[in-house]
Amino acid sequence: MARPPAPLVAEVIAIGSEMLFAGRVDTNSSFIAAHLDRFGVPLVAKTIVGDDVATIRKALAIALTRSDFIFLTGGLGPTEDDLTREAASEALGLELVYHPKIVDEIEARFQRLGRKMPEINRRQGYVLETARALENNYGTAPGQYLVFEGRHIFLLPGPPRELRPIVERHLISLLQDLGLRPGARRYFRVAGLPESQADSLISPIYRRYPTIRCTILASPGDIEIYFLADHDGNELQELTAKVAAALGDNVFATEEINLEDAVGRMLAARRATLSVAESCTGGMLGETITRTPGSSAYFLGGVLAYSNALKEQLLDVSPEILAQHGAVSGAAAEAMAQGIRRRTGSDFALSITGIAGPDGGTEEKPVGTVFIGLSDATKTTAHRYQLGGERSLVRLLSVRTALNLLRKELQRNRS
Amino acid sequence: MARPPAPLVAEVIAIGSEMLFAGRVDTNSSFIAAHLDRFGVPLVAKTIVGDDVATIRKALAIALTRSDFIFLTGGLGPTEDDLTREAASEALGLELVYHPKIVDEIEARFQRLGRKMPEINRRQGYVLETARALENNYGTAPGQYLVFEGRHIFLLPGPPRELRPIVERHLISLLQDLGLRPGARRYFRVAGLPESQADSLISPIYRRYPTIRCTILASPGDIEIYFLADHDGNELQELTAKVAAALGDNVFATEEINLEDAVGRMLAARRATLSVAESCTGGMLGETITRTPGSSAYFLGGVLAYSNALKEQLLDVSPEILAQHGAVSGAAAEAMAQGIRRRTGSDFALSITGIAGPDGGTEEKPVGTVFIGLSDATKTTAHRYQLGGERSLVRLLSVRTALNLLRKELQRNRS
Repeated sequence: MARPPAPLVAEVIAIGSEMLFAGRVDTNSSFIAAHLDRFGVPLVAKTIVGDDVATIRKALAIALTRSDFIFLTGGLGPTEDDLTREAASEALGLELVYHPKIVDEIEARFQRLGRKMPEINRRQGYVLETARALENNYGTAPGQYLVFEGRHIFLLPGPPRELRPIVERHLISLLQDLGLRPGARRYFRVAGLPESQADSLISPIYRRYPTIRCTILASPGDIEIYFLADHDGNELQELTAKVAAALGDNVFATEEINLEDAVGRMLAARRATLSVAESCTGGMLGETITRTPGSSAYFLGGVLAYSNALKEQLLDVSPEILAQHGAVSGAAAEAMAQGIRRRTGSDFALSITGIAGPDGGTEEKPVGTVFIGLSDATKTTAHRYQLGGERSLVRLLSVRTALNLLRKELQRNRS
Repeated sequence: MARPPAPLVAEVIAIGSEMLFAGRVDTNSSFIAAHLDRFGVPLVAKTIVGDDVATIRKALAIALTRSDFIFLTGGLGPTEDDLTREAASEALGLELVYHPKIVDEIEARFQRLGRKMPEINRRQGYVLETARALENNYGTAPGQYLVFEGRHIFLLPGPPRELRPIVERHLISLLQDLGLRPGARRYFRVAGLPESQADSLISPIYRRYPTIRCTILASPGDIEIYFLADHDGNELQELTAKVAAALGDNVFATEEINLEDAVGRMLAARRATLSVAESCTGGMLGETITRTPGSSAYFLGGVLAYSNALKEQLLDVSPEILAQHGAVSGAAAEAMAQGIRRRTGSDFALSITGIAGPDGGTEEKPVGTVFIGLSDATKTTAHRYQLGGERSLVRLLSVRTALNLLRKELQRNRS
C-alpha cells in the first residue's frame, strides 16, 4: 500500500555570535515560520551558532539529515566574521564562484551613497557553484538559493529589512512551484486585551474545531490570531463568526496591519488631522505614528512636555491644575490634549502623562499609573490606566493604549 | 610535546515549541552566556527545539560530541508536553529515579498557596540516576546537574525567574571549582562609524594578538567591541592602547553604557539641560533620550514639528527660511534648534529635519538627506548627512547621529 509522502519540514540556522550574547534577538525565524506555516510546512528546529566555520558546517550537516527546507540566515556580510559562504561550501562540497557582476552592483550601491566600496566587500561576490543569487535591494549581500540532494537551501542576509523582501519574493513562489497550496486562513488583530484574557474568551470556541489550527502571537498591547484550515468550508466560517463576536470591538483589523497604520488610514479617509502631547513617553507616540510612510497627510506634530514648565508654556496647562491635581492626573491629561489641539488646529489630539518608573511612584499613584487624554472639537476626555511592568513596558503600553483609544473613537464615530 | 588543553565550550538546548513561533524569545541563553563569557567559556551554539523526544534526544547527542557544558532549558514542567527528562534519559542511557522527597516539597509548595497538588506534578519528582537535584525556590520543577563522560550537563526550568537563581547559585561555583578564573576584558563602545570602517581600522591591530579574542557587535549607529584575554598582561594593555588611538573620539565609553545614557550622564554632570526639535524622526530622539530613568533631570522636552506650519508656530522658524531653503535644509535645522532652545530655555538643543522616505526625495535632496542642528548659548550649527537605508533606518541613524554630535560637543568642551 502506498503511503502518503512524509510531510515536508523546515529548519533555520541563524548565524551570528551577537545572537549568542545578550540582547540580540533573532526575529527572522518567526518571519520565515509564518510564511511556511500557511503552506503547512512546520519549522521543527532553529539553531543559533556563532561565527565559526566548523560549527556552522556541522549545523548544516545535521539539518541535511532531517529537513527539506534549510534557511541559513546571517554571516553574509563583508567582514572576516562573515563565514556562512565558506561553511556552506565546505559542508556541501561545492565551490564558491566569483561573480564580477554582483560586485559591480555593490560598487554602484556605494557610489549612490557617495562612498567608495571597501575592498573587503568583494567577498560578497562569491556564490555557491550550483546556487542562484537572489537580489538584495536593501543591502550589499545577495541571498543564495540551491537544491542539494533534494533539500532546498537558502542563504539569506541577517538584517530583517534585507531578508524579508527576499523571502517574500522567492519562498512563496518556490512553495507553489513545489505543488504546495496555502490553506484557508482567517486573521484577527486585537488591541486592548491581555493575551490570557483573549485566549480565555476564544479557547472554548476553537477547541470545538479540532481540525482548525489556532496560533496566537502576542506582543505587548497587540495580539495576532490566526486560524488555519485545509479548506475554506463551513467550519472555518462558523468559527470565525463566533470568534469575532467574542472579541467584539477589540478587533481592529482582519488583515495584517499595525494599529498605527489602521488609525492612520481612518484619519486619512476622513481627512482629519492629529497632534500629540507627551510627557512620560517622551516622543514614543509621535515616533510610532510617523513610522507609517505618508503620515504627514494626517499627523501635524506635537509637544514633548517632559517638564512642568513646558506643560504650561507650550501646552497652556494652567499652573492651578498642576498644583491641585499634579502633572500626572486626568485634569492635566485633558488640558494637555486640549492645549495641543488648539495650538496646532488639529481635529484630534492625544495626550499621555504618567509614571513610567522606576522612581516617582506614590501610594496613590504607583509606577504604571498613566492618564491618556483625547480631545476633538466636541469633547475632551481622559482615562486612567494602571499598566504593568517596568519602564519600557509602561511606555510601550501607554502608546498602544492611546492609539487604541483613538481607534475606538474613530470607529464609533464614522462621520 | 604537551599541548595546552583545548578551551572549554558550552551550548544551550532550549526546549519549547512556543519559541519556534513568532513572539516568544529565549532570553535564558544570553543570561547563561554572559556568566560563561567572563570565565572565557564561549557559548558556541544554541538549539531551539520543539516538545518532541526524538528531536531533543538528537540535539543532546550532538551537543555531547562538541560541548563541555550543556544546558537544557525548559520542558521540566508537569504536563505531557514536558519531555526533557525522558529525552535526557534516553540520550544518556540513564534511568530516571523517583524522589519522594522532591514531591513532598512540591506538595508543600501547593499547600502554602492553599491548593492541592495535581497528580501530574509527580512527574517532576524524577531525577536522572547520577544527577543532583538543584532546588528551585520560584517554581515546582527542580533543576538537575550531572557529569556524563566529562561533560557538565544542566537541566534547568524554562521560566527565567526560576532559571536565573539556579544558574547564579550553581554555575559560578562550578566554574571556580573547575579551576577557571574570570579572564581580563576590555570594552569599547563606538558611535559615528559604520561597522566595516571600524573593523578595517582595528583589524590590522588585533590580528597581531592571536591569543586575545575580539568580538564586534554592531547595530545601526552603535558598535560594541570586546577584547578578552586569559590575564591582564602587557599584550592586552598594548592592544587596548593601540585600538583606542585608532578609534579616536569615536569611542564614547569603555564600559557598557548606551549613547543616550552617556550623553545623559555628561549633561547631568554639568547640570545642563537639553531640548529637541524633531521633524522626520517624529519623536524618536525624545523617546530615545527618555528611555534613561531619571532623564527628567536634564531633558526638558521639545517639539515635533512634522508640518511646516508647526515649524513656524512652535519653533519660530521664519517663513522666509522655509520658502528660500525648504524645510529640509541647514538653515531650517539651525532655526529649529535655536527656536526650541529659546522657547524652553535649555542649555543645549538638537534638531533633526530630513527626508526619511520612501517618498519626498529629489535629485538635490534624495531620500536619506538629513540635517542635524545643535545650538547652545554661544553658537548654532547644522550638518548635512546622507544616511543609507529605508525609512526606519534613516530615522534611527538620524537619532544616533544627533546624539553623537552632542556627545562630541560635550566631550570637546568639558566646561
